[in-house]
Amino acid sequence: MSKQTKTNPSQARHSSDVGQWDMETDIAVIGFGGAGGCAAIEAADAGAEVVIFELASASGGSTAMSSAEIYMGGNGGTRVQRACGFEDSTEDMFTYMMMSAGPQADEAKIRNYCENSLAHFDWLVDLGVPFRDSFHEERAIMCLTDDGLLYTGSENAYPYAQQAKPSPRGHNLYVKGDNGGPLFMKIVTENVDRRDNISVHYEARALTLIVDDQGEVVGIVIRKDQQELNVRARQGVILCAGGFVMNEEMLQKYAPMLSRGNQPIGNPGDTGSGIQMGMAVGGAAINMHEGFISIPYYPPASMTYGIAINDKAQRFINEDVYHSRLGHAALQQQGDRLYFILTVDDYGSYEKLNFMAAPIAGTGETVAELEEELGLRRDSLQQTITLYNEDCEAGEDTQYHKGSQWLKPLEPPLVALDITPGRGCLVPFFTLGGLDTLPTGEVVNPQRQVIPGLYAAGRTACGVVRRAEGYSSGMSVGDATFSGRLAGRQAAAAPRR
Amino acid sequence: MSKQTKTNPSQARHSSDVGQWDMETDIAVIGFGGAGGCAAIEAADAGAEVVIFELASASGGSTAMSSAEIYMGGNGGTRVQRACGFEDSTEDMFTYMMMSAGPQADEAKIRNYCENSLAHFDWLVDLGVPFRDSFHEERAIMCLTDDGLLYTGSENAYPYAQQAKPSPRGHNLYVKGDNGGPLFMKIVTENVDRRDNISVHYEARALTLIVDDQGEVVGIVIRKDQQELNVRARQGVILCAGGFVMNEEMLQKYAPMLSRGNQPIGNPGDTGSGIQMGMAVGGAAINMHEGFISIPYYPPASMTYGIAINDKAQRFINEDVYHSRLGHAALQQQGDRLYFILTVDDYGSYEKLNFMAAPIAGTGETVAELEEELGLRRDSLQQTITLYNEDCEAGEDTQYHKGSQWLKPLEPPLVALDITPGRGCLVPFFTLGGLDTLPTGEVVNPQRQVIPGLYAAGRTACGVVRRAEGYSSGMSVGDATFSGRLAGRQAAAAPRR
Repeated sequence: MSKQTKTNPSQARHSSDVGQWDMETDIAVIGFGGAGGCAAIEAADAGAEVVIFELASASGGSTAMSSAEIYMGGNGGTRVQRACGFEDSTEDMFTYMMMSAGPQADEAKIRNYCENSLAHFDWLVDLGVPFRDSFHEERAIMCLTDDGLLYTGSENAYPYAQQAKPSPRGHNLYVKGDNGGPLFMKIVTENVDRRDNISVHYEARALTLIVDDQGEVVGIVIRKDQQELNVRARQGVILCAGGFVMNEEMLQKYAPMLSRGNQPIGNPGDTGSGIQMGMAVGGAAINMHEGFISIPYYPPASMTYGIAINDKAQRFINEDVYHSRLGHAALQQQGDRLYFILTVDDYGSYEKLNFMAAPIAGTGETVAELEEELGLRRDSLQQTITLYNEDCEAGEDTQYHKGSQWLKPLEPPLVALDITPGRGCLVPFFTLGGLDTLPTGEVVNPQRQVIPGLYAAGRTACGVVRRAEGYSSGMSVGDATFSGRLAGRQAAAAPRR
Repeated sequence: MSKQTKTNPSQARHSSDVGQWDMETDIAVIGFGGAGGCAAIEAADAGAEVVIFELASASGGSTAMSSAEIYMGGNGGTRVQRACGFEDSTEDMFTYMMMSAGPQADEAKIRNYCENSLAHFDWLVDLGVPFRDSFHEERAIMCLTDDGLLYTGSENAYPYAQQAKPSPRGHNLYVKGDNGGPLFMKIVTENVDRRDNISVHYEARALTLIVDDQGEVVGIVIRKDQQELNVRARQGVILCAGGFVMNEEMLQKYAPMLSRGNQPIGNPGDTGSGIQMGMAVGGAAINMHEGFISIPYYPPASMTYGIAINDKAQRFINEDVYHSRLGHAALQQQGDRLYFILTVDDYGSYEKLNFMAAPIAGTGETVAELEEELGLRRDSLQQTITLYNEDCEAGEDTQYHKGSQWLKPLEPPLVALDITPGRGCLVPFFTLGGLDTLPTGEVVNPQRQVIPGLYAAGRTACGVVRRAEGYSSGMSVGDATFSGRLAGRQAAAAPRR
């Protein structure tokens, strides 16, 4: 609220303190990752003059570091889905995404995402994003082939499959290896560069928003080449500055649950500055305690034949769910150890890959031997395996409802991997809280009143995806690119001030 | 940020829009519950002129509706603790409270609370709050006798007892029945009324804070008798307006986990207006997703001989913990049923009390019969009971570490109570998120810079107690009264503007 000159993202600058405008544009986009790039393209194509300010010396953001799977479907299916034989329905996609977001779901946002998902696919294809019409059958976290489509969530697993007809919705770029992210951002960047009405400033740090007497956001302060620039934005500012996974203080304050992760997923600019700038002008930050956190126990898919247990030797989830759903359930367990139990045969294929880097905690020629080696209570693992193996023989997991195709008795010799966070295995995480926005991308205050001139997208906003418990790969890049476009379009339709 | 006239708690009024001040005081206290009352007394005793504005037509707030147990100890013990033979240490109390708050603990605040807890006890006694020097031995949620001291948390339970020497710290007023709250607020109100430099306005609703050009809080807009009053506060405004348990929209947005409760604990004024007013001037709201939520499965204490299970018939916590710790763990379980299993003998004493109102889900002359009646997988409960009973015979709960005094084999006939939230049993809840404050009660922004002139206490602030998983009865009233005093003292020491 102060009129002093400030360059702290937590405090806005007042327009009456701006001596002169150093730059003017219709729309200022902060951050050049997937959200910012798509926002700029959409706004420019609607006729606006756009300037992107990017902290780093190149475009990319966290999207370029990701696999860039994009979660799309519904509406009878995207071109790729239909070619692969999946007639996805909007209602099934909507139901699945609502279940995924749980009690904090933003129904209007999810509805809008699903209904316009096919159009989003087509828009991306028009940009030049290539998807091959082929289905990757194997259960995987990311697609190392150039197949265009795969299951990337818990669609086939309990309780989702019982309530929404499964379809694969993870769209993978037509490129071999885990190289979707760089290719995607290369294409987006080329599209940006081709547009005369977009200019880009790299190594340009956004410091703080500028508001006028009516509380409208009219610009932003940028530091570039050791200079502070007051940038006037006639139609608005779109914050696409990522989440806050790189800000330890914010993590501690808002999302202490994520402190059990060991691998922040994001680029160094994910310091929450966009969220802080929005909050400083009255924007509400919501869902700040939530994040993606995972124990990525597959690939190989054969890991799914195993069981995850806590230190009471209890199973706690169907092991055919998406890895962050298992990870979330694992973090809810009492006790201080978590194991993944599998046969020596299935371990064989894990060892070759060693994706999760979980150390071996024990092996046993008998279950009793393994119990002793793991320090489990005598008979406890035996009880669990007795029931589980009976269920496998009968073809139905009566307790956790793992799909019957993954039921195979656990016959010794057995191996136990230590999947306890903090004991060696990979525990990736990133934040899922951010500025509350309308489906249009307009930032709102705690009473959901729009803050004129301010928009947010990607992980700076709180989007359609809200928790590890219900995540699917491709939801974050899907949300970032889609929400970026909406914000760009909305800002471009605003009157010039 | 607007200069328009507004009466919305989410937007502040600017002092330049205030035509005239209708009232002036040193300190305006918003809300006359435990926090507000103690803030006013402390500020007045430090020489300030204080006005309390209370929405309701009488003092009380949520403190008057509570049992008014007050969590105090450390420092060698309060008078009551010492008389009852407990030499409590500050370090044990600190360790216990740090464990209770978990990763979101505010160490400085907890340290301050513990170190000054004996002085707080003495201050309350000086006000006239009576505590009898007697120990209530039975495990209870609230004390229906007039005993002055009882265990009100998980002090004696794993994992707390292993790390901090247990002491009872719940101080209960010298009054029979669950009447501590009304008596406590009667005493506080009499103390307020006795002080010439405190005046109280009832049926006075705080609408929005008033800030000056420097962003300092200089007053508050009050609506009383259909009039809006601009109240100037020379030293500051102290927000003691409760939490947001009565605001469904805020619950949905910030604390969806609490939606599984069915009994909001609080007074109708707990609408979050204090938190919103603070946020509107840049205050950070933290820990907003957390709350107290519980399955209060005892009394009678004999319930502790039973076991809580999920719909896989797995135990999930040591049943001798505080009831909200069990409730929190219950809410983390996969599946859609939760049961409490006990012998018919132990059920007998439960039926007389029926505190939790959990319906009977089934009974069994044998474990197998009970499994069938509950729809549990065959052998699943038998497995759990086999291990548990073996442990009871051996005197050690190898899995969940329930204290040996609570280990008694579960011999049929058995009764199962349905403790699933939403199926009849009492599930009380309230919020534990609020404005971020320094230990002094000064409200801070997201970067922890002080907002001059603004203080918060009680559930409007985020205090020492942060989650259901680590709650003890008396922590909220303890925090409210203590934090109220600190805020009152700090505000009274501020220069008059």
